[in-house]
Amino acid sequence: MPQYRTFTAADAVAYAQEFGGLANPACLVDAQEVGDGNLNLVFKIFDSAGVSRIIVKQALPYVRCVGESWPLTLDRARLEAQTLVEHYKHSPQHTVQILHYDPALAVMVMEDLSSHRIWRGELISGVYYPQAATQLGEYLARTLFHTSDFCLHPHDKKAQVARFINPEMCEITEDLFFNDPFIDHARNNYPAELEAQVAALRNDDDLKIAVAGLKHRFFSAAQALLHGDIHSGSIFVAEGSLKAIDAEFGYFGPIGFDIGTAIGNLLLNYCAQPGHFGPRDAAAFREQRLQDIRELWLTFAERFETLARTETRDAALAYPGYAARFLQSVWKDAIGYCGTELIRRTVGMSHVADLETIEDDEMRVACISHAIELGKYLILIAGQVENVEQFIARVRQKG
Amino acid sequence: MPQYRTFTAADAVAYAQEFGGLANPACLVDAQEVGDGNLNLVFKIFDSAGVSRIIVKQALPYVRCVGESWPLTLDRARLEAQTLVEHYKHSPQHTVQILHYDPALAVMVMEDLSSHRIWRGELISGVYYPQAATQLGEYLARTLFHTSDFCLHPHDKKAQVARFINPEMCEITEDLFFNDPFIDHARNNYPAELEAQVAALRNDDDLKIAVAGLKHRFFSAAQALLHGDIHSGSIFVAEGSLKAIDAEFGYFGPIGFDIGTAIGNLLLNYCAQPGHFGPRDAAAFREQRLQDIRELWLTFAERFETLARTETRDAALAYPGYAARFLQSVWKDAIGYCGTELIRRTVGMSHVADLETIEDDEMRVACISHAIELGKYLILIAGQVENVEQFIARVRQKG
Repeated sequence: MPQYRTFTAADAVAYAQEFGGLANPACLVDAQEVGDGNLNLVFKIFDSAGVSRIIVKQALPYVRCVGESWPLTLDRARLEAQTLVEHYKHSPQHTVQILHYDPALAVMVMEDLSSHRIWRGELISGVYYPQAATQLGEYLARTLFHTSDFCLHPHDKKAQVARFINPEMCEITEDLFFNDPFIDHARNNYPAELEAQVAALRNDDDLKIAVAGLKHRFFSAAQALLHGDIHSGSIFVAEGSLKAIDAEFGYFGPIGFDIGTAIGNLLLNYCAQPGHFGPRDAAAFREQRLQDIRELWLTFAERFETLARTETRDAALAYPGYAARFLQSVWKDAIGYCGTELIRRTVGMSHVADLETIEDDEMRVACISHAIELGKYLILIAGQVENVEQFIARVRQKG
Repeated sequence: MPQYRTFTAADAVAYAQEFGGLANPACLVDAQEVGDGNLNLVFKIFDSAGVSRIIVKQALPYVRCVGESWPLTLDRARLEAQTLVEHYKHSPQHTVQILHYDPALAVMVMEDLSSHRIWRGELISGVYYPQAATQLGEYLARTLFHTSDFCLHPHDKKAQVARFINPEMCEITEDLFFNDPFIDHARNNYPAELEAQVAALRNDDDLKIAVAGLKHRFFSAAQALLHGDIHSGSIFVAEGSLKAIDAEFGYFGPIGFDIGTAIGNLLLNYCAQPGHFGPRDAAAFREQRLQDIRELWLTFAERFETLARTETRDAALAYPGYAARFLQSVWKDAIGYCGTELIRRTVGMSHVADLETIEDDEMRVACISHAIELGKYLILIAGQVENVEQFIARVRQKG
């Protein structure tokens, strides 16, 4: 077994030649490190014509922006590769293909997606992909259904739960989503002008009890193999195509967490619109986001129910009407988790470009404030919103 | 490592001498196999004065009543011993002490409880142990709290979940509780007179959807390390003492399952009273059982909340009011699981002596019918019963 070493560009080329599955691997001649995340090296491997053909991604043993002071398990490369391989089985159209991975080197080789762009950037620029929301709903339905108790044999499910136990990465979510923004914490990062609004999150009994419930279900509700971090920066889009990447937070958790994260990032973009466009365009893009959320949820729910009707293996869970009942609880969880995503991306450590790139200071603060208020509101009303139309009406009420 | 072999009485004596922890092991001279279960050999080990000093329990690789045609994993001995060792850490007063176990031989050596009697037999005979219900509530609060997300570090919890994955034993519960009684199945076993009542369970949409929800949470809600089979036959009592035994179904599941199983067995005894005593005594014993249920739940909830207030390690779950909110969901789960226990013990394969030993055929069938109806009713109303007083009132309404 090879020992871990940090790859150079030359290492990455050699590795891609060996494990990239190309007919003529010698054509791969160059690599460029393009990782903009904090946790990994990402090499694009180019052929002699300068075309990117393969991606080599290696986990670093620490958080890059902080340096070696925040060590992070290399085992996340195994968990990411395994999650993507498992999701690819169930949704090959919408999951990046893993060609090879090595747990000791914490490295994986995967298909190049240079023809695609990161969805978040496109959402910020106002480039609309009319099929993206539907395709994301399809991805979530297929991956989450096929790794749930509806579909897996109970023995297999239990073995998979053990295989995907992901303590270090889950701990990041446990802290950054459910703890930091609701207490006074050094990792928090928000505009000083919003101090009073943020302070109010710390002493709201109903809010803190609701967040405790969401954290408790994140700890204990092993419903399906989640992507675990399915925000718009973990999604590549092209015309008619969508591919999920970056699944290092994969573990068996509450289905509503993935749905809520996805919806939450569309809402963050919704909140940011007045910072990027004039009133008329901003209003139109906001309507697009609400329409995206409607399509995402309706597609997810419809596909999940169809799969439940036709492919449920468990005799009790197959009873007509049960999947619809279960999806009601997923929906309510999703609204709560969506709220926590809005708050952790504005008050907590890790922010989104949708809001951060707003140039006008006052406007940026106003948009961030809107997102915080909307997040808090959604966490509080999660149990009372029956369907996506009500959800959209409530979001509109909040401005 | 020793290879598995079925113990003879002489093997059991020799094993107890080696691993029983006695100062003078040579005093152990004789063994008697007393197992009345279907899954294990249980040897009492006697000293030369004829006093039982130690128990040696060995798992058989098949279900004894059926013979070798129903093989059953020997790994359950490891799971039982580990569960009891873990529970003993948190509730030594109310958990049988494991002195030694060997996973390869599927054998464990444990303290002798000859001074105690099985609670079920005492409940049937009308022998009242005024502290038993309180002590059971205490046992459940301490064991379930200390193995929950309130108390365990998230890394430790995840490792424990993996260590206690128990597919074969869980499958028995999954089938016998949540499938068989609600379909036409060869393993079911109920009086022919009740065919119509039992058949009505199979087509009741609300009931089947509620049972699917209970099964789904049994699959996926890893809230705490359950005993997994805490019925009155798994509990030894003596004056002022209660000890849980037989934890081979231990795994991380929904806390309400243990609570519901315990309450359910008190209700089965409640239903059986008219079959064992005249109207006046039966009514008095029934009141005792309702009082037991009240004390069990109130003790459990009060102790769990106290532990949550003083020993919760998770910062978010420690927020004042969250534990009480969580216990509301446990209570509702418990009512549902209590209902499934009543039905699986009357319609399903595995019955209880409370009902089976009623000599008068007509009376036995009437008591069984009452239990089935009560079980169905509890499953259906589980979400609407706010507290134990309402629960008792509802049980009284049903006769």
